[in-house]
Amino acid sequence: MADIPVGTRAPHSATAPHSSDDADGAAAAPDGLVAARIRAVLDGRWAHVREASRSMLDDAAFLDDPSLDLDESRRVALDQMRRLARTDWPASGFGADAGGTGDPGGAVTGIEMLAYANLSLMVKAGVQWGLFGGAVENLGTERHHREYIAPLIRLDLLGCFAMTEIGHGSDVQNLETTATFDPDTDEIIVHTPTPSAVKEYIGGAALHARMAAVFAQLITHDADGAQNDHGVHCVLVPIRDDDGGPLPGVTTADDGLKGGLRGVDNGRITFDQVRVPRTNLLNRYGDIDADGRYSSPIDSRSRRFFTMLGTLIRGRVSVGGSAGSAARVALEIAVRYAEQRRQFSVPAGDSAPGTAPDGGGPRATGEVLLMDYLQHQRRLLPLLARSYALGFAQNELVSKMHDLQVAQEPDRHEQRELESRAAGLKAAQTWHATRTIQECREACGGAGYMAENHLTGLKADSDVFTTFEGDNTVLTQLVAKELLTSYADEVSEFGAVGWMRFVAETVADTVRERTAARQIIQRILDRSDESLEEGDLADRSVQLRMFEDREEHVLETAARRLRGGAPGSDDDDPLAEFEAFNSVQDHVLRAGHVHIERVVLEAFLAGIDECPEGPARDLLEDVCTLYALHSIEADKAWFMEHGRLSTERSKAVTRHVNELCTRLRPHALTLVEAFGIPRILLNSAMLDGPGTDPVRQR
Amino acid sequence: MADIPVGTRAPHSATAPHSSDDADGAAAAPDGLVAARIRAVLDGRWAHVREASRSMLDDAAFLDDPSLDLDESRRVALDQMRRLARTDWPASGFGADAGGTGDPGGAVTGIEMLAYANLSLMVKAGVQWGLFGGAVENLGTERHHREYIAPLIRLDLLGCFAMTEIGHGSDVQNLETTATFDPDTDEIIVHTPTPSAVKEYIGGAALHARMAAVFAQLITHDADGAQNDHGVHCVLVPIRDDDGGPLPGVTTADDGLKGGLRGVDNGRITFDQVRVPRTNLLNRYGDIDADGRYSSPIDSRSRRFFTMLGTLIRGRVSVGGSAGSAARVALEIAVRYAEQRRQFSVPAGDSAPGTAPDGGGPRATGEVLLMDYLQHQRRLLPLLARSYALGFAQNELVSKMHDLQVAQEPDRHEQRELESRAAGLKAAQTWHATRTIQECREACGGAGYMAENHLTGLKADSDVFTTFEGDNTVLTQLVAKELLTSYADEVSEFGAVGWMRFVAETVADTVRERTAARQIIQRILDRSDESLEEGDLADRSVQLRMFEDREEHVLETAARRLRGGAPGSDDDDPLAEFEAFNSVQDHVLRAGHVHIERVVLEAFLAGIDECPEGPARDLLEDVCTLYALHSIEADKAWFMEHGRLSTERSKAVTRHVNELCTRLRPHALTLVEAFGIPRILLNSAMLDGPGTDPVRQR
Repeated sequence: MADIPVGTRAPHSATAPHSSDDADGAAAAPDGLVAARIRAVLDGRWAHVREASRSMLDDAAFLDDPSLDLDESRRVALDQMRRLARTDWPASGFGADAGGTGDPGGAVTGIEMLAYANLSLMVKAGVQWGLFGGAVENLGTERHHREYIAPLIRLDLLGCFAMTEIGHGSDVQNLETTATFDPDTDEIIVHTPTPSAVKEYIGGAALHARMAAVFAQLITHDADGAQNDHGVHCVLVPIRDDDGGPLPGVTTADDGLKGGLRGVDNGRITFDQVRVPRTNLLNRYGDIDADGRYSSPIDSRSRRFFTMLGTLIRGRVSVGGSAGSAARVALEIAVRYAEQRRQFSVPAGDSAPGTAPDGGGPRATGEVLLMDYLQHQRRLLPLLARSYALGFAQNELVSKMHDLQVAQEPDRHEQRELESRAAGLKAAQTWHATRTIQECREACGGAGYMAENHLTGLKADSDVFTTFEGDNTVLTQLVAKELLTSYADEVSEFGAVGWMRFVAETVADTVRERTAARQIIQRILDRSDESLEEGDLADRSVQLRMFEDREEHVLETAARRLRGGAPGSDDDDPLAEFEAFNSVQDHVLRAGHVHIERVVLEAFLAGIDECPEGPARDLLEDVCTLYALHSIEADKAWFMEHGRLSTERSKAVTRHVNELCTRLRPHALTLVEAFGIPRILLNSAMLDGPGTDPVRQR
Repeated sequence: MADIPVGTRAPHSATAPHSSDDADGAAAAPDGLVAARIRAVLDGRWAHVREASRSMLDDAAFLDDPSLDLDESRRVALDQMRRLARTDWPASGFGADAGGTGDPGGAVTGIEMLAYANLSLMVKAGVQWGLFGGAVENLGTERHHREYIAPLIRLDLLGCFAMTEIGHGSDVQNLETTATFDPDTDEIIVHTPTPSAVKEYIGGAALHARMAAVFAQLITHDADGAQNDHGVHCVLVPIRDDDGGPLPGVTTADDGLKGGLRGVDNGRITFDQVRVPRTNLLNRYGDIDADGRYSSPIDSRSRRFFTMLGTLIRGRVSVGGSAGSAARVALEIAVRYAEQRRQFSVPAGDSAPGTAPDGGGPRATGEVLLMDYLQHQRRLLPLLARSYALGFAQNELVSKMHDLQVAQEPDRHEQRELESRAAGLKAAQTWHATRTIQECREACGGAGYMAENHLTGLKADSDVFTTFEGDNTVLTQLVAKELLTSYADEVSEFGAVGWMRFVAETVADTVRERTAARQIIQRILDRSDESLEEGDLADRSVQLRMFEDREEHVLETAARRLRGGAPGSDDDDPLAEFEAFNSVQDHVLRAGHVHIERVVLEAFLAGIDECPEGPARDLLEDVCTLYALHSIEADKAWFMEHGRLSTERSKAVTRHVNELCTRLRPHALTLVEAFGIPRILLNSAMLDGPGTDPVRQR
């Protein structure tokens, strides 16, 4: 909790680093104007949604109460959902022709803001309006929109999203649940053929959902009885009656207690030959006519599947953004605590505090604020800088997603890039959140472990974010795969060995993916002539080129190793092929990681470019430098191994990071203020209430 | 959860890496004989205590039930305590002359074993018998032993350990609570003078404890009324009557929900001029006679304080050992899961599993076990190796502690070394547990997030271990400080700036601390002539010298920087002094870390030396190499920066680690079996019950 040895005691009384004049934080008071400027930039394109959410969420009615039991937690979460349903926000996620107001960016931004207040509520809202509603809108057609969208917006219809199965969490293309068309009754029979095909961890399945969007292998039969498999499709299946009672053939079970997210009623669903009308098939990408004939606008079963998945991207984008919000809340709590909490006198008074004549307690004895210790700055400030970087990257992602989703004819390549970006950023954001919240809990010591101070709840609730909406390792590998194959269309058909072969056979350049910031980046690169090997590390163009050069090198060498490892295409030894792939797996994952790092840095620079010249922009530049140099520091072994950093420059990176920590330390409060987290969340026992929002007051 | 991109699918059906012949784990079956041999070595000196604990704890009555509410959890934990009190174990922690059976090593080992089963119970037992009982025994004298030890062993007296205050978590020498002798009534008045002096996070204070061992500044007055402060002492203060009702002047409050440890009733205590008899002072290191005269066998107030703290070392040792146990449980769960769970077909069958003619589900489709992915091995096996390393280091620590605690005249330098070792290992073990349990949770995907599968409970309960019994950062700094001053006696008097000055003024060599393994180490070093700069990284002596050399260099350079930064001793600018110290803080902490790494490696080698030649020993050697090389890999930037690793050798370290992962992969189950975790803990929903213990069956 503090960083001077237990029980140290220096002999002389003296002034503490921050003298009593600023003992109440004058030195550390946030600069409200700078915070407001930064907030405006960080809020981005949907600032109006963020501001409306802030007002709404600064209300105890939306908070989570960790003292409630499981049943109460779920009841409260449902009440909170109904409260949300009375606002305009849920309609924003749906197109005007489907009964909504057509603002996908606003919908996702709203989810991200919900995550400031209550992660159970965020997940429940994400399941209902994002996943279930998203499936109905994006995979269904007009008849589904007409019938279901308005009721599900209003919560007259509560749904769930039944994709994951016990045996298939990540490998959803191989789900086992079947949806078999029966021409005799014009029905689809939904069935769970094996124990591993049971739908699992489905949010809403335990209690509240009345209908499930069920992902299943769609099967029809020829006139002669031959079976045709069309791959995974989505079918709407009622799972409970209006009173919540069971329906024939549907068995649900309750997953019970989880690591967190007590408000979300996850459960299992088993189908025993459950019949629904043929029209319950969400038929935008694959339909069955009354004669039992299957048709689809996309011939390739695999490409069809990935196209369907691609339309559901909003869930992944939302989870990344929400993880970012959770990390921000933890950082604001930890920074505020470190600005209040003092521990150890340096050099320390020699009188026992209990006998201090002024009775003022430790504050009067010259103890040091936690935030003044270098080690404490090292713990929190690089994470804070990374939160900024990821925030700008998230904004860029949401904006791109919005534009593609409202476009009449979205570009297919851009859609693929977007999906890859969403996958990579989801992994980066959720890993960052896990690490940041953990560090913040530890940085707040015993107080951080008390539930009333929020950090343990944030940790418990957000912990599964690295897993759901795509396991992070799987997603990182997906990013690398797309880069290594230059988003080649054919590749979506292939498994790991298949795309390894593709890389081997096509000597495609691993192109550097454009980001929205390309022009800004080019401008920065153009205005410097520092060399990569010897340039000033504080020079932005040097940092940029180090990120770019690393990505190119890792991708190229990964491609080379895959080529070298792949057996010839006539060879058919699956074990050898798997081993060849497996031996390169760490390198492939690394390619995904370093790509994401570069994309995030460029997004940060694009974000800064939106900020007017002045102290706010200067501060953001420093924060960006800390992100860049800390990222280089974390990977400096690679830079040295590959001749990109001499040992002397490598040491200089660490010195730079320390210096930046010292330089940013006075601005720590300003930087967390700029997040605009609803004040009510900071009214925890260990913090002197930060009171009203100084930024909003202006 | 798995490591191949979402939805990949390869075109050909084929055999999986582990063909159906060994689909049920034949390839991965643990070697029971090897596991038994390893267990015998890892169990160490108190193997008999471990075996007895294993039998006792393989019983649902000792488990935690996460579905209970707070009140029920606490009631159950108290019932479990009473069950423990009926065994011989609690008496082992107390000397024969104090009514115990005199086996401190056995007592601590028993706590470590409790942590396999139930961390709330472990903490509650640690508070009662370790901290409260330990204070009575070690700080009290015969009158206290006679009156309290037998009742507290039997739980007729429930106690708590009231050290931490709201304002003072780490800096306990500056506690504010006062204990003032009143000669008129021959009483001591215990008082909480300020809000920050309230005792906080005290286990047992909310509900169950009847008496508190209160740490307070002891004050007497001269005949002329002048006040004398004697520093922190411990006084026994009843806080509740026999029925649990409040006592006059004592106010307790409940800390309520925490991040975990629901069975432990932490709370606050405030004293309002509470009077207890003078004889309630635990008077071994400082006494007041009937005339109000203070006397102590130790003149220096500071040295007295550290001597008192030193006798309480058992708590810190226990927390480190318990964290080690928690990490082992998580590793066994994650390894077992990875040996059962398959995800993604490689190269994958082309038939949809749902239509597989054999109806055998995914097992029949050639899917890959998680444990076969390189990335999954990378996630789990280095942590497993580190668990082994820390386990051997813990055994060595407990053994040394035992010998010193039963010695008639413990060597003072050895006691200091022991305290430092305990501090360092507590930090290493608890950070390792936090990281390992997190990684294991993520490696088990959605299943890992279900409370019934234990991982989330382990995470939540153990999370505070990095904080209590000494914040890890503070402890690491303490280790460095002791090394930098060669355990100089004077130094215990100094604060951070004071010891920085001491380092500056005394050109003491930072000696290489002996470990118990010194002779074994020398033998290994002697039998190799590999050079440090170019030697074979797989050579044990090369690894050893890299660890030693790193420690020496970091210590020497830290000392040099402290010398360079320290203002002259006549200088008295506290701000400059603090800043000089602060700018070196990261370097100082690094010195603590690398010292601990070296000590742990040597302990591992000493452990291996106890193992007879054969497959068990060979396996341990490989595990040790993985620990050593992974530790070097994690720090390879430093080795390169300081000319200890060429870039080529640095790359070779990573290749070695990958190769070791592949080599150890078939032994993963054997290695977790060897931990001897009670089987009942592995009966979780996501695991096929591992059934009875194959090792014990032999």
